[in-house]
Amino acid sequence: MMHNFNSGPSILPASVLQQAAAGIQNFNNSGLSILEIGHRTPLFEEVLHTAQTLVKRLLNLPQHYEVLFLHGGATTQFLQIPMNFLDTHATAVYFNNGIWGKKAIEQAQAFGNVYVAADGSDKKHAYIPKNYTLSKQAAYVHITSNNTVEGTQWHQFPDTDLPLVADMSSDIFSRQLDYSKFSLIYCGAQKNMGAAGVTMVAIDPQAFPTISRPIPAMLHYQTHINNGSMLNTPPVFAVYVAMLTMQWIQQEGGLAVMEQRAIERSTKVYQALDALPAFIPTVAKEDRSHMNIVFTTQNPAWEELFLQRCKQENMVGVKGYRTVGGCRVSLYNAIDMQSVDALVNLLHQCNDDFLKK
Amino acid sequence: MMHNFNSGPSILPASVLQQAAAGIQNFNNSGLSILEIGHRTPLFEEVLHTAQTLVKRLLNLPQHYEVLFLHGGATTQFLQIPMNFLDTHATAVYFNNGIWGKKAIEQAQAFGNVYVAADGSDKKHAYIPKNYTLSKQAAYVHITSNNTVEGTQWHQFPDTDLPLVADMSSDIFSRQLDYSKFSLIYCGAQKNMGAAGVTMVAIDPQAFPTISRPIPAMLHYQTHINNGSMLNTPPVFAVYVAMLTMQWIQQEGGLAVMEQRAIERSTKVYQALDALPAFIPTVAKEDRSHMNIVFTTQNPAWEELFLQRCKQENMVGVKGYRTVGGCRVSLYNAIDMQSVDALVNLLHQCNDDFLKK
Repeated sequence: MMHNFNSGPSILPASVLQQAAAGIQNFNNSGLSILEIGHRTPLFEEVLHTAQTLVKRLLNLPQHYEVLFLHGGATTQFLQIPMNFLDTHATAVYFNNGIWGKKAIEQAQAFGNVYVAADGSDKKHAYIPKNYTLSKQAAYVHITSNNTVEGTQWHQFPDTDLPLVADMSSDIFSRQLDYSKFSLIYCGAQKNMGAAGVTMVAIDPQAFPTISRPIPAMLHYQTHINNGSMLNTPPVFAVYVAMLTMQWIQQEGGLAVMEQRAIERSTKVYQALDALPAFIPTVAKEDRSHMNIVFTTQNPAWEELFLQRCKQENMVGVKGYRTVGGCRVSLYNAIDMQSVDALVNLLHQCNDDFLKK
Repeated sequence: MMHNFNSGPSILPASVLQQAAAGIQNFNNSGLSILEIGHRTPLFEEVLHTAQTLVKRLLNLPQHYEVLFLHGGATTQFLQIPMNFLDTHATAVYFNNGIWGKKAIEQAQAFGNVYVAADGSDKKHAYIPKNYTLSKQAAYVHITSNNTVEGTQWHQFPDTDLPLVADMSSDIFSRQLDYSKFSLIYCGAQKNMGAAGVTMVAIDPQAFPTISRPIPAMLHYQTHINNGSMLNTPPVFAVYVAMLTMQWIQQEGGLAVMEQRAIERSTKVYQALDALPAFIPTVAKEDRSHMNIVFTTQNPAWEELFLQRCKQENMVGVKGYRTVGGCRVSLYNAIDMQSVDALVNLLHQCNDDFLKK
């Protein structure tokens, strides 16, 4: 058995993989592959509609919200959001709390003014800021709800009347929140939502401001809405896998169950890391992510040894982000407690071996 | 047996579908699904590298060309090309020969000047223009090599020293050409190249002009090149299916064989359409596409009857483009001669029935 701790693309439920493989051979008894059907056929329209409905149901979003399945990844949203929401002389509030938030800031600066409400780079983004002030007037407030690379997660979102925009790429569908507080939620699908190749954007159309710049059709949310998320050929298969994954979440019990499991899993790992002197969790306790757990080793030389042991135990995806180093395990919705237990077991074993107990 | 005449997403080789389904269960004996592997692992890097190499080999492109696999569909290229190649006061030459070329023109006009060298809208784009003049000075010349909707195909490309840019979405890998004449070739994968969700761009980096506008990273070709086509998480599965499809083309004998089959298939259908008075092929003989065959019925009421008969014979994708009407069959690389023969047979039967012979 493989233990898949990949940060994304990452583990998917076995039943989803089975259904996806079956759909490639013969989709819904059509005699055709899901890869061979026209996107403007009832066959695919039902997939798209089901996926849109599931997003709204799982997140309990108001009916008037629109759900888009777009190309381009969350990285394209970094530019699409300011292009649609930040007029040239307006200001948007961003939080610089990690690599992805920083990239979002860089893209937004090309379109208007960016006010960075908090910057965690002094402590390598190992915490979520608590002391910040939000201006009363701003186009929107942008947050990365979970920092995949640094292992932090917002557990208490800013209290503001400004439109809240959140990159939820790495913790979508993992916890219960009042999602209607967000004017725009976006995520690349390749963690809790499915396979790489599609980006979900849930949006309150009432939040659209007047923007003076011309916006190319493919980057214009309203145009995508007007075209029912089919302005051009959508990434059919990736939408299908997203639908299957959301159906699985629903069948398992929805976000309440996902949240409970996420807490249970991450608590086991954090407890081990806190108890074992060979390993050092890097994130402030109150800001720890339930999805991505980042840690180092007391002796830097042990890191490579630990990674080797992981490999021997069929554990993949334990190496930290390429520009950051250290270790990281990602515990997304689909991961089994068996993998978590195997990891905790290995942490104990390595601790004893490294400390020569 | 289904006969898949879809215009895209469309038919893929059975062996590709089998390999794709197998890769979803267990990719390359890794114990993981292709949907679950990290994109920055040797497992996927090999897929990407193989796919890039196959594009260059099949098209016989010079070694210094770069091959990118991007998100966003060909429609995103409509804006990305002028953004990167057309400075604000410069002029690009476009051909208005169909729905997709027109969309490309509309997007380009937001970035610079567009000179439309020929406009076929007078005859509903049922031909490829022969009498046009190209200015000696222009940023580039843009062509849609095959018009999926109207069923025309360029068989003789403009003779020019200007950089040639071609949307080859619907006839990529279907014929032998001197592809090195093109500075930029792009295509959505969902016809001859694989599944929807990835866009291939082959580019001569020596053709990049100096552009004064700032270009967002995700829309900047050079940035994608600098990042080895992995600026963000690529659409992993769609790249994999593209690789498998190109491997199949290679194994079958490459573009020489694809071209021969395409001519054989389309000739059979055009001969039937020309011979049968009940059906009217709409495109000028010398400009007919080998990929998409467009026709109407002598009596407009027969169209619906014909489409019903197609349905009875398990033929899908025969209805014309939603804004154009009529009938269209697409004969991409993966389609079997058996399907072509079944279609020709049905055309004869319907002709007899409609004319009450």
